[in-house]
Amino acid sequence: MDEPREWGLSVKRIAQTCIAAGVALPAMVFALGKRRRPARRVGMVIGLKPDRMAAYEALHAASHPGVRDLLRKYHMRRFSIFLHRLDDGRYYLFACFEYTGRDYAADMRRLAAEPRNRQWLSETDAMQIPLSGEETWAIMREVYFNS
Amino acid sequence: MDEPREWGLSVKRIAQTCIAAGVALPAMVFALGKRRRPARRVGMVIGLKPDRMAAYEALHAASHPGVRDLLRKYHMRRFSIFLHRLDDGRYYLFACFEYTGRDYAADMRRLAAEPRNRQWLSETDAMQIPLSGEETWAIMREVYFNS
Repeated sequence: MDEPREWGLSVKRIAQTCIAAGVALPAMVFALGKRRRPARRVGMVIGLKPDRMAAYEALHAASHPGVRDLLRKYHMRRFSIFLHRLDDGRYYLFACFEYTGRDYAADMRRLAAEPRNRQWLSETDAMQIPLSGEETWAIMREVYFNS
Repeated sequence: MDEPREWGLSVKRIAQTCIAAGVALPAMVFALGKRRRPARRVGMVIGLKPDRMAAYEALHAASHPGVRDLLRKYHMRRFSIFLHRLDDGRYYLFACFEYTGRDYAADMRRLAAEPRNRQWLSETDAMQIPLSGEETWAIMREVYFNS
C-alpha cells in the first residue's frame, strides 16, 4: 500500500516543482533583463567662440527645448555643459553625461541621423571651436568615478 | 427623533475626519520631507602636472578607497573626473558631481575640516596646477542641463 502513496507524493512534488519553476524562471529572466546596468559616463571638451557666448547660452537655456527629447531618446541622461575661460584666454565648454542604453555606438549613429539633431548641430557647430585634430567635441578620459 | 440621529452622524463624521487627518497629515509631512529635491550640479577644472599623471591616476583608481566615503557623507554623488590635454599642451582635470544635500556651504566646510580629507588634499594638491588666480579647483559655470 505504501508504494502508490509514495508514487503519488512524487508526482505531486514533481508537479509542484514544475509549477514553481514555471513561475520563478520567467521572473528571474525578467529581473535579469530589467536590472540596472551601471551607466557609462562620458566627458567631452570643445572651444567656444567668444563672440557667440551669449547666443550659445540662449540656445541652451532651460526654457529652450532644443534636442532635449532626442538626448533622452538615445539614453543620454544628466547631460551638463559647463563653460570656463582657461589661462590661454580661450573659452571652453565641458560636457558630461551618463549613457544608460545598451549599444552606445548604435545610439550615437541614430542620434546623428535625426534631422532635428542635424539642424541643431548646424547651429551649435558654428559657435564652437574643436580642439586641434578634432571635428567636434573631444572625448576625455575618465580617471575617477565615485557613485 | 431626527436631531439625535443627525448629531450622531455628525459625531461619527467628525471622528472619521479626525482619524483620516491623523493618518493623512503625518503621511503628507513625511512625503514632503522625503521628496527628492533637484540636485545641484557642480563642474570644476584644474591643471595637472604632466610628471604626476600616473601617480594621480593610481590615487584615483577604482580600487583605491581615497575619500570616497567622505564625498558620500557630505552629499557629493556621481563624482567624475576626466583628464584631457588641450591645445596649449597642458593637461587639465575636469570634475563634475551632484550635490544632494541641503546646505552646500556647510557641507563643504565640514568636508574641508575632516582630517582624512586634509591628508588627501595634501597629496592631490601637490599634483595639480590651479588656474591663474585660483588656489584649488576653479568652479565652472553651468550653461546647460538636461535630466
